[in-house]
Amino acid sequence: MSKHLLLALLLFSLRDVQGYITYIEKRFPLEGERSPPGSPWPLPREWKKSSTVLTIDPNDFYLSSNAERCNIIRKAVNRYMSYILIDSEKGRSSFDHPVMPGVQVNVENKDCGYPKLIKNTDQESYNIEIAESGEAKISAKTVWSALWGLETFSQLVYQDTNHAYLINATAISDSPRYGYRGILLDSARHFQPLKVLKQNLDAMSFNKFNTFHWHLVDDQSFPFESKIYPNLTVKGAYSPRHVYTQNDVKDIIEYARLRGIRVIPEFDTPGHTQGFAKAYPDLITPCYGSLLDLITPCYGDGKNPYTPNYPEHADSEMLNPIQNYTYEFFNAFFKEVKDVFEDEYIHLGMDEVYPGCWKSNPDIKDFMKRNGMTKISEVEQYYVDRTLANVNSMGYKYMIWQDPIDNGVKAAEDTIVEVWKDKYLDSKLDYWYNYIKNIAAKNYTMVLSAPWYLNYISYGQDWKKYYEADPRGFDGTEAQKDLVIGGEACMWGEYVDGANLIPRLWPRASAVGERLWSREDVRDVESAKFRLDEQRCRMLRRGIPTQPILNGYCGDYEWEMNEEIPASAHTVHVNLTVSLFVCLISLIDSGIV
Amino acid sequence: MSKHLLLALLLFSLRDVQGYITYIEKRFPLEGERSPPGSPWPLPREWKKSSTVLTIDPNDFYLSSNAERCNIIRKAVNRYMSYILIDSEKGRSSFDHPVMPGVQVNVENKDCGYPKLIKNTDQESYNIEIAESGEAKISAKTVWSALWGLETFSQLVYQDTNHAYLINATAISDSPRYGYRGILLDSARHFQPLKVLKQNLDAMSFNKFNTFHWHLVDDQSFPFESKIYPNLTVKGAYSPRHVYTQNDVKDIIEYARLRGIRVIPEFDTPGHTQGFAKAYPDLITPCYGSLLDLITPCYGDGKNPYTPNYPEHADSEMLNPIQNYTYEFFNAFFKEVKDVFEDEYIHLGMDEVYPGCWKSNPDIKDFMKRNGMTKISEVEQYYVDRTLANVNSMGYKYMIWQDPIDNGVKAAEDTIVEVWKDKYLDSKLDYWYNYIKNIAAKNYTMVLSAPWYLNYISYGQDWKKYYEADPRGFDGTEAQKDLVIGGEACMWGEYVDGANLIPRLWPRASAVGERLWSREDVRDVESAKFRLDEQRCRMLRRGIPTQPILNGYCGDYEWEMNEEIPASAHTVHVNLTVSLFVCLISLIDSGIV
Repeated sequence: MSKHLLLALLLFSLRDVQGYITYIEKRFPLEGERSPPGSPWPLPREWKKSSTVLTIDPNDFYLSSNAERCNIIRKAVNRYMSYILIDSEKGRSSFDHPVMPGVQVNVENKDCGYPKLIKNTDQESYNIEIAESGEAKISAKTVWSALWGLETFSQLVYQDTNHAYLINATAISDSPRYGYRGILLDSARHFQPLKVLKQNLDAMSFNKFNTFHWHLVDDQSFPFESKIYPNLTVKGAYSPRHVYTQNDVKDIIEYARLRGIRVIPEFDTPGHTQGFAKAYPDLITPCYGSLLDLITPCYGDGKNPYTPNYPEHADSEMLNPIQNYTYEFFNAFFKEVKDVFEDEYIHLGMDEVYPGCWKSNPDIKDFMKRNGMTKISEVEQYYVDRTLANVNSMGYKYMIWQDPIDNGVKAAEDTIVEVWKDKYLDSKLDYWYNYIKNIAAKNYTMVLSAPWYLNYISYGQDWKKYYEADPRGFDGTEAQKDLVIGGEACMWGEYVDGANLIPRLWPRASAVGERLWSREDVRDVESAKFRLDEQRCRMLRRGIPTQPILNGYCGDYEWEMNEEIPASAHTVHVNLTVSLFVCLISLIDSGIV
Repeated sequence: MSKHLLLALLLFSLRDVQGYITYIEKRFPLEGERSPPGSPWPLPREWKKSSTVLTIDPNDFYLSSNAERCNIIRKAVNRYMSYILIDSEKGRSSFDHPVMPGVQVNVENKDCGYPKLIKNTDQESYNIEIAESGEAKISAKTVWSALWGLETFSQLVYQDTNHAYLINATAISDSPRYGYRGILLDSARHFQPLKVLKQNLDAMSFNKFNTFHWHLVDDQSFPFESKIYPNLTVKGAYSPRHVYTQNDVKDIIEYARLRGIRVIPEFDTPGHTQGFAKAYPDLITPCYGSLLDLITPCYGDGKNPYTPNYPEHADSEMLNPIQNYTYEFFNAFFKEVKDVFEDEYIHLGMDEVYPGCWKSNPDIKDFMKRNGMTKISEVEQYYVDRTLANVNSMGYKYMIWQDPIDNGVKAAEDTIVEVWKDKYLDSKLDYWYNYIKNIAAKNYTMVLSAPWYLNYISYGQDWKKYYEADPRGFDGTEAQKDLVIGGEACMWGEYVDGANLIPRLWPRASAVGERLWSREDVRDVESAKFRLDEQRCRMLRRGIPTQPILNGYCGDYEWEMNEEIPASAHTVHVNLTVSLFVCLISLIDSGIV
């Protein structure tokens, strides 16, 4: 029999195992299978769960803290009260379990400003202790980690079939693996409504992301209101409705701050600048096309300005790097950006500078000759040097995409380089773990987004491939791997807007969330999938239209199956009804009717 | 130079043309580019558009018909008034153009029952004449084609930048290419909320689909309320909330009827029946597994019932085809189905009958021996014969998936066979245009869904591949091609529910809509894309959250950018406020306050 077994296993291993797994997943339903209720996502570093179950009385439950003077904590307490007691209609306490009367949140460092990039992840650590006696507390290093502690605590609460709130006695000790945990949204290919940006910030906080990388403008449109250059939106926005006023931006920054999320704006130069050029065409370099470019692309004949000189590009698209006007314009613009945004960092883009257009321009050729430059990367170096110096002089720190480094250009030592190139690009380096080695070898601090371009959709549970990618999963020294301070899931905007952005992004981005927060050895997709399904349902319950990842359903609440009138409308309705009732009673009482 | 040009073209053709096209699409924005406003989707057979522009006065516009006694027409007139005059806030007439005072709809055949499968597409024909004088009429063969005429008419109306309603003098003569234009939704893998089913029916009517194929139940869950077998939902539905009562079903059928859409229910047997088995386990055949199956799958040792006997399947999953109980049960069940649904057709499934389980069952082996059967397809034939005879005896016509025919089983001559197999299956036949030839050779009437499995998503403008597939695009005789009476876009439910079904399906399904309606030579994706983008925006404006297909924006209306409180809540609010005001005035008036 053991010979038979061996043979069987051998033959089985030769079969199409991947096909088999896919089939099983498609074929067999969840059938009510779930992770144990109250499982947190992302998984905490240490999580001890007792079998002792406590209950919560929704009419007599408190969340209090020693940091009520900080509005972040004050508002978070209100918010998490409603997430913990989410079933306002049927939620109740159980008679079968001891009551947990409330939770005390103790914050060590009560600084209550704006979140910053924290490389020391201990600053985001917190502990949760829920004793079997019912005593419960969250101990947090900072107000930011208090938010993460509240989020985890809210996820530990679940309901039984009688809608009673339950929570197990628990001990959690938690801190993130990485200090930079980002989501990129693109509001240039499509304008993303404020409501969607806020829903996304909510979802980020539910998954402990702390950085919103806002790719605000691009070739396609310019929705960011500039007060010094108002024509940028007048001519560059899709329409006057497709503009983020500076008040809108500040509203988003505050909404993010209250959830422990930094907002890093990206204003991409010197490429991707047609959005600027709609109002200020002199900022960009005309390309000089030629039919000969079809044979030897990127060498125009220098005779016809504003001719697309190579098939993949426009008649003009990159900033003019050789005129002072360019630098003066952006010096003023970046100063304005710094006044509006609160983060220490700005993302300067610097990606996809294609040499052809610059090379074809006779003025740039002339400039190169005058300055003894032989390679176009020297022009790029010149642009990078002047721009970083400008931005640096106003106290900004900066991120850039990896491209200049790939091209041999040097950036300032403290630049954070975002690694985005992966297999979908036609290159010898192919996969991101090859690309990243080049940047690591040059000792730059890095953020990894290459494996997490979530705009590229595919059928089925593609969250697994996002989950399996690891920021240290490349062939480098330990010191080089330590250069990676985190990662970022990107949702570029070509095919998403208010109609589909949120369900396309979530819960796929949650997979990246756990990868960046939880321990390196939390890697098993099979045990993660039920927890992720629960997290998906949790987000749905909190008002985020997340897409399903498994067959089945989400307990008592699903999208489009409940009352459609928002709660606020209900309140108005009830208030008016009560007032009308009181008024009518008064009329009757006084004998008028 | 001509040598240069030749060389250039040669080299160019060697470059990555696909990559180039992809890049261009990604790179260059729509920048306000649009099809001429008022372009219909799907494209009418004949469409002559004059340069003479008329205007509509929203305060003095009529839609009248000679068929007001038919509630389909009566309600359609109301509905299309609101679609034509959709901008209730800013819409107005123009002073610069002659007024079109209204439209007369003339229906030839006023029969007002339920839509039926119409193979003679002339029955869905209509004409629109909008004279330069402003006189306008729609002439329709049937109430169904009157609906299509109203839809087209409503799409001809557009607004200028001052929000004035405009329409060009136009002559349209239209009829569909195919009489069966379907959408399949699956409410078993995930329950699909009624609101979503109705949104989908709306979207179908905007794209002139006339058949809703409702894959109601499957292995995963049983949401259809049966009154004779109430345990089907008690045990088979995900939860009591995940049930379509018979009233819900009738509500959907009526909603569909008013939009000219048939509802064909599918109850798939003999496979995909675990949903039935949750309440009635004796209906299905236990499989007899064995370790040896790992080597030679599908031949159990006959000793262990309810053992999964081959890796891709369950311990029991197909109906027991050799007991009378099975046929009696389904005879009663299909009779109940016939009482609830109105269409002449039922879809009986019959797909994916895997032989292994039946083969491993000793009772079936015994039955085969007794009846001189040597091949398992003879058992399948036996099941098909008895089931079709049962269903036929109650006056039902039927559709089935292609599988029994592939297996050499004969179905009744008037069976409609749905061709669904395509390249994603591991088979020698590979692509659908190979599979379909087998069915065509056997002379069955066919509906094609293979190239339109829209649940399989991919990045970018995948609508183009749906648009390019053609029901006659296979190697067959003209007579064989004529056997195809239409097609169907399928949205299987593994990864969609109320949170994402609609934006994932639309406007991708619109591509299928035009393929099935418009002339065979309407094939150019480049000219279609701007019209499709306009159609996407049109659907958005009418309340369907459709996903974007191009960079850009949708005029004055987009998702999540407008008032969030539904109009009904506003009305309540206003009414209550007015009542309260009146009451307070009375109190003041009477000197009480």
